[in-house]
Amino acid sequence: MKHQIKDANGKLGVLMPGLGAVATTFIAGVLSVTKGFSKPIGSVTQMGHIRLGKRTDNKNPLIKDFVPLAKLEDIVFGGWDVYADNVYTAAVKAEVLDRFQIEAIKPELEAIVPMKAAFDKNFVKNLDGTHVKDFKTRYDLAQMVMEDIKTFQEKNKVERVVMVWCGSTEIYHQAADVHNSLAAFEQGLRDNDARIAPSMIYAYAALKLGVPFANGAPNLTCDIPALVELAHQTKTPIAGKDFKTGQTLMKTILAPGLQARALGMEGWFSTNILGNRDGWVLDDPDNFKTKEVSKLGVLEDILSPEEYPDLYGDLYHKIRINYYPPRKDNKESWDNIDIFGWLGYKMQIKVNFLCRDSILAAPIVLDLALFIDFAKRAGMSGIQEWLSFYLKSPQTAPGLRPEHDIFKQLIKLQNTLRYLMGEDLITHLGLDYYEGIFDTE
Amino acid sequence: MKHQIKDANGKLGVLMPGLGAVATTFIAGVLSVTKGFSKPIGSVTQMGHIRLGKRTDNKNPLIKDFVPLAKLEDIVFGGWDVYADNVYTAAVKAEVLDRFQIEAIKPELEAIVPMKAAFDKNFVKNLDGTHVKDFKTRYDLAQMVMEDIKTFQEKNKVERVVMVWCGSTEIYHQAADVHNSLAAFEQGLRDNDARIAPSMIYAYAALKLGVPFANGAPNLTCDIPALVELAHQTKTPIAGKDFKTGQTLMKTILAPGLQARALGMEGWFSTNILGNRDGWVLDDPDNFKTKEVSKLGVLEDILSPEEYPDLYGDLYHKIRINYYPPRKDNKESWDNIDIFGWLGYKMQIKVNFLCRDSILAAPIVLDLALFIDFAKRAGMSGIQEWLSFYLKSPQTAPGLRPEHDIFKQLIKLQNTLRYLMGEDLITHLGLDYYEGIFDTE
Amino acid sequence: MKHQIKDANGKLGVLMPGLGAVATTFIAGVLSVTKGFSKPIGSVTQMGHIRLGKRTDNKNPLIKDFVPLAKLEDIVFGGWDVYADNVYTAAVKAEVLDRFQIEAIKPELEAIVPMKAAFDKNFVKNLDGTHVKDFKTRYDLAQMVMEDIKTFQEKNKVERVVMVWCGSTEIYHQAADVHNSLAAFEQGLRDNDARIAPSMIYAYAALKLGVPFANGAPNLTCDIPALVELAHQTKTPIAGKDFKTGQTLMKTILAPGLQARALGMEGWFSTNILGNRDGWVLDDPDNFKTKEVSKLGVLEDILSPEEYPDLYGDLYHKIRINYYPPRKDNKESWDNIDIFGWLGYKMQIKVNFLCRDSILAAPIVLDLALFIDFAKRAGMSGIQEWLSFYLKSPQTAPGLRPEHDIFKQLIKLQNTLRYLMGEDLITHLGLDYYEGIFDTE
Amino acid sequence: MKHQIKDANGKLGVLMPGLGAVATTFIAGVLSVTKGFSKPIGSVTQMGHIRLGKRTDNKNPLIKDFVPLAKLEDIVFGGWDVYADNVYTAAVKAEVLDRFQIEAIKPELEAIVPMKAAFDKNFVKNLDGTHVKDFKTRYDLAQMVMEDIKTFQEKNKVERVVMVWCGSTEIYHQAADVHNSLAAFEQGLRDNDARIAPSMIYAYAALKLGVPFANGAPNLTCDIPALVELAHQTKTPIAGKDFKTGQTLMKTILAPGLQARALGMEGWFSTNILGNRDGWVLDDPDNFKTKEVSKLGVLEDILSPEEYPDLYGDLYHKIRINYYPPRKDNKESWDNIDIFGWLGYKMQIKVNFLCRDSILAAPIVLDLALFIDFAKRAGMSGIQEWLSFYLKSPQTAPGLRPEHDIFKQLIKLQNTLRYLMGEDLITHLGLDYYEGIFDTE
Ligand SMILES: NC(=O)c1ccc[n+]([C@@H]2O[C@H](COP(=O)([O-])OP(=O)(O)OC[C@H]3O[C@@H](n4cnc5c(N)ncnc54)[C@H](O)[C@@H]3O)[C@@H](O)[C@H]2O)c1
Ligand SMILES: NC(=O)c1ccc[n+]([C@@H]2O[C@H](COP(=O)([O-])OP(=O)(O)OC[C@H]3O[C@@H](n4cnc5c(N)ncnc54)[C@H](O)[C@@H]3O)[C@@H](O)[C@H]2O)c1
Ligand SMILES: NC(=O)c1ccc[n+]([C@@H]2O[C@H](COP(=O)([O-])OP(=O)(O)OC[C@H]3O[C@@H](n4cnc5c(N)ncnc54)[C@H](O)[C@@H]3O)[C@@H](O)[C@H]2O)c1
Ligand SMILES: NC(=O)c1ccc[n+]([C@@H]2O[C@H](COP(=O)([O-])OP(=O)(O)OC[C@H]3O[C@@H](n4cnc5c(N)ncnc54)[C@H](O)[C@@H]3O)[C@@H](O)[C@H]2O)c1
Ligand code: NA
Ligand code: NA
Repeated sequence: MKHQIKDANGKLGVLMPGLGAVATTFIAGVLSVTKGFSKPIGSVTQMGHIRLGKRTDNKNPLIKDFVPLAKLEDIVFGGWDVYADNVYTAAVKAEVLDRFQIEAIKPELEAIVPMKAAFDKNFVKNLDGTHVKDFKTRYDLAQMVMEDIKTFQEKNKVERVVMVWCGSTEIYHQAADVHNSLAAFEQGLRDNDARIAPSMIYAYAALKLGVPFANGAPNLTCDIPALVELAHQTKTPIAGKDFKTGQTLMKTILAPGLQARALGMEGWFSTNILGNRDGWVLDDPDNFKTKEVSKLGVLEDILSPEEYPDLYGDLYHKIRINYYPPRKDNKESWDNIDIFGWLGYKMQIKVNFLCRDSILAAPIVLDLALFIDFAKRAGMSGIQEWLSFYLKSPQTAPGLRPEHDIFKQLIKLQNTLRYLMGEDLITHLGLDYYEGIFDTE
Repeated sequence: MKHQIKDANGKLGVLMPGLGAVATTFIAGVLSVTKGFSKPIGSVTQMGHIRLGKRTDNKNPLIKDFVPLAKLEDIVFGGWDVYADNVYTAAVKAEVLDRFQIEAIKPELEAIVPMKAAFDKNFVKNLDGTHVKDFKTRYDLAQMVMEDIKTFQEKNKVERVVMVWCGSTEIYHQAADVHNSLAAFEQGLRDNDARIAPSMIYAYAALKLGVPFANGAPNLTCDIPALVELAHQTKTPIAGKDFKTGQTLMKTILAPGLQARALGMEGWFSTNILGNRDGWVLDDPDNFKTKEVSKLGVLEDILSPEEYPDLYGDLYHKIRINYYPPRKDNKESWDNIDIFGWLGYKMQIKVNFLCRDSILAAPIVLDLALFIDFAKRAGMSGIQEWLSFYLKSPQTAPGLRPEHDIFKQLIKLQNTLRYLMGEDLITHLGLDYYEGIFDTE
Repeated sequence: MKHQIKDANGKLGVLMPGLGAVATTFIAGVLSVTKGFSKPIGSVTQMGHIRLGKRTDNKNPLIKDFVPLAKLEDIVFGGWDVYADNVYTAAVKAEVLDRFQIEAIKPELEAIVPMKAAFDKNFVKNLDGTHVKDFKTRYDLAQMVMEDIKTFQEKNKVERVVMVWCGSTEIYHQAADVHNSLAAFEQGLRDNDARIAPSMIYAYAALKLGVPFANGAPNLTCDIPALVELAHQTKTPIAGKDFKTGQTLMKTILAPGLQARALGMEGWFSTNILGNRDGWVLDDPDNFKTKEVSKLGVLEDILSPEEYPDLYGDLYHKIRINYYPPRKDNKESWDNIDIFGWLGYKMQIKVNFLCRDSILAAPIVLDLALFIDFAKRAGMSGIQEWLSFYLKSPQTAPGLRPEHDIFKQLIKLQNTLRYLMGEDLITHLGLDYYEGIFDTE
Repeated sequence: MKHQIKDANGKLGVLMPGLGAVATTFIAGVLSVTKGFSKPIGSVTQMGHIRLGKRTDNKNPLIKDFVPLAKLEDIVFGGWDVYADNVYTAAVKAEVLDRFQIEAIKPELEAIVPMKAAFDKNFVKNLDGTHVKDFKTRYDLAQMVMEDIKTFQEKNKVERVVMVWCGSTEIYHQAADVHNSLAAFEQGLRDNDARIAPSMIYAYAALKLGVPFANGAPNLTCDIPALVELAHQTKTPIAGKDFKTGQTLMKTILAPGLQARALGMEGWFSTNILGNRDGWVLDDPDNFKTKEVSKLGVLEDILSPEEYPDLYGDLYHKIRINYYPPRKDNKESWDNIDIFGWLGYKMQIKVNFLCRDSILAAPIVLDLALFIDFAKRAGMSGIQEWLSFYLKSPQTAPGLRPEHDIFKQLIKLQNTLRYLMGEDLITHLGLDYYEGIFDTE
């Protein structure tokens, strides 16, 4: 039976704290696509198909034709940044897209100007932007961000709004009492509690207004009890955290494959070289820590050493990120995987990924924006685990171990869509293709 | 509801045409494991777990504890080869395992002596062994192989027998009329039709006696209508073909992952260097052709260019195998993958696999042997598509496109086991972990 | 004492049979440099320094300031091709240079139009161009090419001319009697002997007119006794063959380094993927053979297995070139080197070169053109072994083993320049920096 | 004219502070070679040839046949360590050599027992050995080490002794006043000045006794004015520092090659993974600093950015060493080199070296030991720059820039030998092979 899902009428506002490499690549890309210059490659909502029914039914519609999503033409962009550059200038500086591609949509990009950021330099030491809001307490900041959202909505006559954090990675910190309930959090805002990160203020403002929120960075943001509580209160979906791109994407593809075959693993060494602003921020050990924690968990969770002690009990996993300017946004990763097979014999796999960081991240911003808007219209609220597919550190129900295996995440996403649209779930059993396979029949 | 499955009582004979690198590594390994010297890493039947019930049930038994399989201790080995070396000598020459490991089980290995091969040099020009059966017609050969099987069974007092082809790759040829029905095939045997390959004779002999058969090489063997017909007649399971190891294993892990994210692909170049006897046989273009066809299909089938023309319509896929003696059995592969993302921007992934060919193949021989024996006891016959997981060119029902995605293959295998054992199938939907996710509830 | 060297007055014509990727990249590059848009990176004549005197003298002039070479501004370009495209069109099709860079010098490039080629399809089967000279005998062809050269010289008012073969690789063939003396060769021209390759006709025409000739492809051209004889007769320098770029360049850098340390080598496997017209021509086995022979000799000559049997006696060297369209001109090579050290322990070196073929070749065209013109003015004639530095298969005096070690080649080149300019040769002894190093002093 | 060189009569003692992976691999290797089990691959003194005269003379004797060196059979080993393990036990623990190879020479190895170390934990925090000398002042230590040397010499009846530092890398520190003259240094010994490193004490003791000294680690040891002064006083050769193996070896091979061709370089990123004791010591940032400084200088010195600003002015060079236990002594390095060519077009070279650290270092210990002994007998004293070939940070005359290009280092080494033996130096000019190359002749 199909769920009740509201139509995607009218315009959809996509607001992003952080108009840097990822956000500008996302914005320029959507504009380029709607103008017919390019294809939204890498976006599962736009390019992906979904199988319905039996293999032999040959029913494989595009996801966007199967599920009622907002159209690219209906998106309106906005955001905040600590630098005042408009999106045209920011895109040029980011050096992700070819210059001619940016020039072709210059007027549209120039028109998107960042609002002043809710910022606290303690959370990102390597940034020196000054396009920031003055404030006494974090409570004021939250109010200003809510004002910004409402103004944006009115000015642009958008029907619905979603927010995706595309800001820099904040320093590592752990959830404290101030994050543990909505009441404590709101008190903390009023007390200007230094443990409330800027990203949390944006998330709070969004959720308070019923605006779905997704977090593309590894920092603690909506994954604190206080904001989960608020999400349920205002019946708003949330999803976090950290866009799954590049090396971690590869890890969550390869690790399940090796484990599927019961191959052992002695070590996995991952190094990265990148030279963009993100890399510069992560050159600070406190900010790197946040990223490291997000990247490290993945492997252990997939391989379950406690269940497979002979295979993964001695796994040594190490990750390095190196700021290396010649690479710019073209992050390169090198992975060395020490595996062992039959009788313990050793083998090595080396993966060298000449990647483009923001090119991989931009379509995720799009998909998350469209899907959290869709979830809201489908009446879903709180943590959307079915969006784990896009995230390095998926937020889950308390006590539930996150699923990092990208193939299980994909089935979860697809079966969720099938379920909501009233289609049969797929199990890949398929014995029915083989009449008489059981000789007793 | 659980299926009726006969117990795995008594000994299981595993017969292999071809006692080369793979077969001897398999045999030495099982012996080494039963003596407690090593672990059967890479064997899913021995080391793999299977999840039952909900994620929070924490029910993850070992597969061998869940499904009634033959025990390693109950396996008896036998085989044929065109060289007369016993398994000890053959294992030493193969240079796969460390010498000390072979020495530790020398008496057991020496005791396994190949029977004379059913052989025709036209199918493998690079071999010059003379330990072969004399024959007038292929019909005689088939009879002799059946005699061999029966003698083996009696001498070793084994309850059940399975056969796994571990012989060299035969030259490329396509199914002809003589392969199209059992009647034509049997006539061909009597006419000594040159289009009937030696491997088919082994398969025929096995199936005639109700002995389950699996094919580890890429040659046409049991995947011809004649032998599928025979398999149904004698209610015997078959599975083919070509052990999925090394580079192709990686391909069926990576390709689904990239496609999951709707990333485009412009080219995939694969090269291999290896220096063992298998490599020497494949240095002959006719034999390489067989392997190439088996390796090439994989990618197209996973990526479905007809469904995703923007992503995979221009894919250029090339595979090379190079005989390079310094590598011996340590086949090394190098893959270059040209992908593109958001707006068509190009990226490259390079995978360098320092692999050990026979180390990866040996546990597959074990799993296939145990599973086709299990299938027979579960009353299944004909093509066992759920064993696709282990094979580069899975045999399927006529008209059914093979599934190469290793993750779908894994789910199919696991859900087949769950189904046969009367457990719930798994869909990874998991919305029930999130009470109140629908705000209407 | 300094040699007598004529001044580089007036214009220098550079004529190239073959206006494809390399030649157009060379032409566009020189024009771009003279207009101040770019730097002639990779050109030793333009960017390289040469040390004079003692290390502590700090005298390191640019080579072009030390030796009287033609100036880039004084070069006039011309050539022949089997396709009628002007250099602008050919450069665009070659896809080597960014489009904007080509557009900036469009008029100059359009003005360079190929003359009709001296061509014989038997030597390059994969080409189908029709912009070719009609002829009865090869003698006619030679006359026509000589006419072309003179017309070019007059029309462009150039003082001196040099010729560099930048045409496709011709099929493999070995020197026969017709190539063994000038008399036999000239008779062959008149007899239209099919063993005289088109490239030889260009070389003959050039040398006959005293025009220095260099060969950038691996085909037999000026390295036959007939043309060496002619070169001496007309007192003209020649240099060949096959521009040393990419993988072979790396090989002649690495191999001497490993040998310097007495490290052993068991195997070297080289593979290449490329997708330009050169790759397409080399996809024909006859043409590949020519290239393979040129690439293979390098290693053996450097490592001297006969002298170092323990280190290189069992060396297995294999080279593959694969046509792979996604790469275009960005040839990528992958080398695996199996070395061994102390007590025979094995190690591996893997080199992955993301190269740009024509970018590496273009400055070699420039340097060879300038240096053979210089050699002519310095009164040198015949084989110029000191230009080995630029070539995969250096032409040497009969009976003299070619030197492939790039560092010895470099010293030879530099000491030749020092010698011609009357400077001290450099031996790197340098004991004189250490006064009192001998305690007897 | 040949120099006066004393014969290599009698036994040669090789004493090493630090009997770890390198030293034990060196000792076991020499023993294995003298017993005829293995070949001294990687040792230039044993396996290398040297060309004498003209290319066509074909005179290429082995170096050991050309120059009077000590014979392997005449070497007697000894050393110190902070752990009491004899060389057999230490070799087993180091896991460099195959166990069977060690067993074959067990008695000889067991007989070599370390003397108590001159040690100060402040210089190597990650070591916890207790097999150390008690001392009041560093002066006492020096006396004890001198006693050790003399006792060793008498007990083993050795004619001559040399010392090679194979101890752990000490922490980074810079030369201070106490190191600036022999007088200050000897006062510092008496004052127990904490800035005098243990390695300096060994060097002082050796030089005081006229024992040649080489330093295989990157720490400041004999490259301080005080010890250079002492070396001249006692007419003793010294050479330092840091064995040039693995990644740096490759760097000094590749960089000169790329520069030879005037190719530009934007960045070089080097990372290493290793899991032996050396790696564990270098995991401490203070000790890593010493190594980093030694490894970093190489590239700049070879490329001379000040001379080639267009090519190397913006070079970004970064080196990482990562402790990664699965690798053990098989250090693996990965280098990414960002180069640019003609008109600035970018290319990348990636080098992946599956290396064995101690296997590369052991023959260097041998060569340095033999050559410093030879130098002493040839009457040379002080800094031996001609041994730069073996060292990452060659010690040079004050004010003289070290030469890192391995090919220039090799010529320097070879021409030094030729010079000492009264042979012609080689310049690679070779115009004389081409009679009549000058047409004026
Ligand atoms: N593949 C990827 O690119 C990828 C993958 C996973 C996660 N991420 C994360 O996405 C985020 C964006 O990446 P990017 O490459 O665009 O980085 P970027 O540095 O180019 O952009 C981040 C922008 O956020 C701004 N910013 C920082 N704090 C802010 C605040 N409090 N309010 C408003 N703006 C703020 C910065 O000024 C900057 O312009 C980073 O956290 C990164 O770690 C990126
Ligand atoms: N990873 C892998 O090793 C792998 C993967 C996929 C498929 N395979 C296939 O498995 C097979 C075995 O591989 P291997 O490495 O052991 O090769 P191998 O050459 O070491 O062994 C094959 C043996 O088969 C014997 N043989 C050939 N024809 C025969 C016949 N008609 N009857 C009896 N014996 C015969 C040969 O003499 C040889 O000893 C090959 O076909 C190979 O292509 C191997
Ligand atoms: N790095 C390098 O690019 C490199 C290195 C070594 C050698 N080479 C050699 O340089 C040559 C040119 O390489 P490219 O990449 O420019 O190839 P290309 O195919 O782009 O250009 C060669 C041109 O020569 C023309 N041609 C062929 N035969 C001719 C003839 N008889 N007369 C006149 N024109 C003729 C072809 O039509 C073509 O346009 C090839 O032989 C190649 O093997 C190139
Ligand atoms: N390729 C190479 O292996 C390589 C290359 C360049 C330099 N090096 C240097 O060579 C040295 C030895 O390397 P290794 O791999 O054998 O390391 P290792 O850790 O195995 O051995 C070093 C030994 O020195 C001992 N030691 C430390 N301080 C000492 C002291 N004051 N007196 C006596 N013994 C002392 C330690 O206990 C240890 O046993 C290291 O400094 C390393 O950095 C090695
Ligand atoms: Na690193
Ligand atoms: Na290849």
